[in-house]
Amino acid sequence: MKRIVLLGAGNVAYHLALGLRESTAYRVVQVYSRQRMRADEVVSLLPGAEATDSLSEIMPDADIYLYALSDGALPAVWEAMPQTAGVWIHTAGSVALEAMQRVHGRSAVLYPLQTFSRGAELIWAEVPLFIEGSDAESLEECRALANALSPRISEASSADRGKLHLGAVLACNFTNHLIALGEEYLSVQGFEPKVLMPLIRETMRKLEHLPARVAQTGPAVRRDEATMARHLALLQDAPALQELYQRLSQSIINN
Amino acid sequence: MKRIVLLGAGNVAYHLALGLRESTAYRVVQVYSRQRMRADEVVSLLPGAEATDSLSEIMPDADIYLYALSDGALPAVWEAMPQTAGVWIHTAGSVALEAMQRVHGRSAVLYPLQTFSRGAELIWAEVPLFIEGSDAESLEECRALANALSPRISEASSADRGKLHLGAVLACNFTNHLIALGEEYLSVQGFEPKVLMPLIRETMRKLEHLPARVAQTGPAVRRDEATMARHLALLQDAPALQELYQRLSQSIINN
Repeated sequence: MKRIVLLGAGNVAYHLALGLRESTAYRVVQVYSRQRMRADEVVSLLPGAEATDSLSEIMPDADIYLYALSDGALPAVWEAMPQTAGVWIHTAGSVALEAMQRVHGRSAVLYPLQTFSRGAELIWAEVPLFIEGSDAESLEECRALANALSPRISEASSADRGKLHLGAVLACNFTNHLIALGEEYLSVQGFEPKVLMPLIRETMRKLEHLPARVAQTGPAVRRDEATMARHLALLQDAPALQELYQRLSQSIINN
Repeated sequence: MKRIVLLGAGNVAYHLALGLRESTAYRVVQVYSRQRMRADEVVSLLPGAEATDSLSEIMPDADIYLYALSDGALPAVWEAMPQTAGVWIHTAGSVALEAMQRVHGRSAVLYPLQTFSRGAELIWAEVPLFIEGSDAESLEECRALANALSPRISEASSADRGKLHLGAVLACNFTNHLIALGEEYLSVQGFEPKVLMPLIRETMRKLEHLPARVAQTGPAVRRDEATMARHLALLQDAPALQELYQRLSQSIINN
């Protein structure tokens, strides 16, 4: 049984804890968070694990140190970590392996291409995992851990991982924001914002078997200037949204 | 049994035909399209209906004339229609009832807030329908027809319908486009573009119980300037996409 110290108590750490707790090959023995209460919360999912809010109390003899902290918090935590023998693995899309490897030789990355929310149940087996290692041994250690979560494992360099993360921002963070703008616009106009859900479901369902480019519908792809002009007029009191409407329509026309 | 003439043979007409063919209260008796082959295709779904590509052959004695043509095609078709007694019903989000009523007194609108693709099966019972009538009788005729498709029926003025359509463009057409940009970016970088699907599914699944604003994740909402700068640098050879990235990130930050 390999022993893991999990650093972080946010959404990614929470789902890693859930994903690993049934494993017969790995056991999370300690959870670190700067906020003790949050570490306790994650530990409550993990029989036998302990919580700490102090990096000096990190167990030095675990096999794996699994970092699920925000990108910005990682460097300071690495610098403050005690000496350990085990492999360090971070889970961030846009943080180069090299940044961690400078602090600790045996390093790897396990990047889940997924969005994590507490409360929402996650099917780990469907999540594509991208791995990278500082050396063959660390990479294999990381691959074995990835295997405990999902069979969808690929190797990706730090540069490739950054590109995957960018693709995810375009396709998920920005789409979510546009849905937010749509919901908020309808809400201000007196409609139930979730009236859009059947349409959103169907839009996404089409993408299961069509490239999004082929599935494109709406006034811009039809070059329906009259409808676009009407929509822009409706947005005359919301200049920022009006400008986004114009730019996204132009982007659809140019694509 | 009320008799319907269906004008149009595109995706909306196709799904209206499928949605109405099991009805015991309505029968589509004729399908018009400027392209005879396309009318034939829709008629093949409708036992007993006939196809025509000539407006002069439109049956003058049907109960309902149901227009599922592109917004731009509607005015010319209305002008060229023969005199009929039945109620005319169009299905367009951004076309005012008044535009049709000028040509034919007994008018109504049945607007399905949905995206329609041939091939994809559609669950009509989940589609929100918005209706409007030129007079009480036409409105009730339209409501009865709507009832044959879905129980989710609301009244909406032409102005409100335009706003719903705008919300749908934001939340569906623009989101689809951003997914297309994400897929195309990853494809150019050598990745399988559908690697994003588990992430897209999860992003949308969260919206079933959360306002999109609350579900927002990603570098912009975290004010993660380092990651945003890295992404903008990756896009330096794609200035249009780079500009969209910047504007959408700013919109998330401002929201």
